[in-house]
Formats: sequence, C-alpha cells, structure tokens
Amino acid sequence: MNQLIIIAHPKKDSFSHKIKISLEKEFINQRYSFKIRDLYEIGFKPVLTEEELKLNKEGKNFPDIVVEQSYIEWADELTFIYPLWWNAFPAILKGYIDRVFTNGFAFKINGNGPEGLLKNKKVRLITTAGMKEKTLTESRIFEGLKITQEHGVFEFCGMDVLDHLYVTEVTSINKEQKEIELNNLLTKIFSNKKEKV
Amino acid sequence: MNQLIIIAHPKKDSFSHKIKISLEKEFINQRYSFKIRDLYEIGFKPVLTEEELKLNKEGKNFPDIVVEQSYIEWADELTFIYPLWWNAFPAILKGYIDRVFTNGFAFKINGNGPEGLLKNKKVRLITTAGMKEKTLTESRIFEGLKITQEHGVFEFCGMDVLDHLYVTEVTSINKEQKEIELNNLLTKIFSNKKEKV
Repeated sequence: MNQLIIIAHPKKDSFSHKIKISLEKEFINQRYSFKIRDLYEIGFKPVLTEEELKLNKEGKNFPDIVVEQSYIEWADELTFIYPLWWNAFPAILKGYIDRVFTNGFAFKINGNGPEGLLKNKKVRLITTAGMKEKTLTESRIFEGLKITQEHGVFEFCGMDVLDHLYVTEVTSINKEQKEIELNNLLTKIFSNKKEKV
Repeated sequence: MNQLIIIAHPKKDSFSHKIKISLEKEFINQRYSFKIRDLYEIGFKPVLTEEELKLNKEGKNFPDIVVEQSYIEWADELTFIYPLWWNAFPAILKGYIDRVFTNGFAFKINGNGPEGLLKNKKVRLITTAGMKEKTLTESRIFEGLKITQEHGVFEFCGMDVLDHLYVTEVTSINKEQKEIELNNLLTKIFSNKKEKV
C-alpha cells in the first residue's frame, strides 16, 4: 500500500505539520511505502494559465504537472493535510487541483457525462480550522465541504473518500489538547484502516 | 455608486471576459464610476506565505495587498466574474480572498466572535460553468457555493450579496445562445438595481 501525503501549510510549526510528522512516523512503524509533497516547500505554482489550457486540450502537460501526476499514479492512498481558509483549500492547494487533476488524467468526458479515472485510489482529508466545531456545524460549513470537496472533487474523480477528519479551534487549544487531538486523529486513521483491511 | 469588477479568467476570449466588457459598457452608459482588477492581467500572486502571516499579525500588509484593499475601500459594489473550477474559485481568485480579506480589514474578532468590516458594501457574483444547470442542482453545487462563498466569505465580512448569477454549459452553447445569456444577465443585474434603488 503506497501512501502519498500532500500538505499545504506555510508554517512548519503549524499543527498541520505536526500531523504530517506523526503520520510519517506511523507509516514507518507500520512499514508502508510513503512519499510527501509539501506544496509550499516545492514552491508549487497554482495558477492555471491560458498556455496550459491550450496544452491540456492537446492532451499534454507542463513538466511540473507530469511529476505531480506520477506521484498520484504511484499512490494507493492519498492524504491531504491543509488548513481551512475561507471554507475552502488554501490557494496553493486549490491550484494543485486546478492544474494536476486534468481532463484525461483525473476524469474523462463520455457521451454519458464525466467519468472518474482515479477509481482504484483512496483519499483521506485532514483539515485544521480555527473555528469551533459548533460554529462550523451551525453555519453548515462541514456540509458545504462535503458537497464541494468530497463529492465535487474526489468522488467526481472516482476516488473512495475514506474520511474527512477535522481538528477545530486549532489556533486556541493548548499543547496538551493538541497532543490529545493528535492521538485521536491517529487512532481514527489506523483503526479505520484495520476495519477496512 | 462606485463599481469594482474583479475578474479571474486566463482567456481573454472567454465568456467571462465578454461579460466583463458588456458590464463595462453598461456602467459607462449609466454613468457609474468603475474600476477593474483583472487578476491574470495584473499577475496577482495568490500564495499566502509564512512571512505574510507574520506581517498580518502585526497589522501590516504587503504593498500589493495595500493596493487591492484600497480598490475595495473605494468601491460601493463589487462584481466578481470567474469560471467555476472544481466547485470553487480558480486558485488565483482563492488567493485574492486568502491574501486581501485580512483580519483587521475584512473582519475582526471580538469577544462575541467574528464581525464583518465590509458592512456598507454590496457584492455580486457571476459564475460561468461548463456543466448543465440540472447537474449542478442535482449534485447540490449551487447549495455548496451558497454555504462556502456567499455566506462563508462575503456575508461573513458583512457584505450584502445582491445576487449569484450563473451561466451554465458555457463551453457548449453557441454564439447566439451566448448573446441571449448575456442579455439575460444584464437585464437581471440592472432590473435588480432599479428595484433596489
């Protein structure tokens, strides 16, 4: 089982990066092959241009996108770790979706409409948020993300969404609470895995 | 009434740009003051960095953001024109929100939670989509965007959302149908205005 972590947080001391490090350790413990794409670290360029749209129409991609697609091809399971900015992906991750998930790679258009091409892959989303869980529930943000991200991006491409895990109030909880959250998160991820294996 | 158009489409011959041009003409006809921010044309940088997060915490902004905020301050009404990519803003526009709508400019955090700071401004969203209206309704994308964009971004900042107008099947409709769509759009925008004045 090949594991790919895609992380999009500018701060190395963020909780997103703590999650990444813990997940890495656990992948090592459990002897999974894994690779990491840290979008800030690699300086991923998120803006889809007119030139690239033309290239895509010809079924071609820029070299940086060929690289990213090969990571996804290699992976059986993808884990996206990102902070919730304005109820959506940070721009760098939105641009990763815009540019990497091309027509012909992530989906194709048939007579019957779109068909996902990443059918054999599983995906897990881990989202950190400053807001309280109560606020996110009441303002229906969880619902909005289920529609726009889980269904609208990943299931659209035929992927199996294993889980969308949230850590809320991430900017206000203390160090001890963070440890608890981190343990809860790992337990959820790896107990889910056992059930599903 | 000062009108600001913010457009985020890489192709100058796109329907998004046709809408922009028609809207410009109508603003001239109706003697509105207007300004335009074409995010691709100005080469807007969408990636919020660690350095910028630090600066924001001190209540400061990078020079490019000071410029964008001054356009918003000047405007009474904002019109965002963008294509729907993966049920969300294109990355360049997502980054505009991430970087320009800062804490202290677009909202502030009180003891009672967040408070919008753009209360005296109105906003109109014009979204072009390749998909059919039926598909967008059935997959609840309109609903998802209402939650994540209309409520979650603009109303969160205290703005009055005048309208979220969609042009669907934009990549498959012919030139005549596009003219009809364009006229419908302008009628909706300017008849709404008359009612509300």
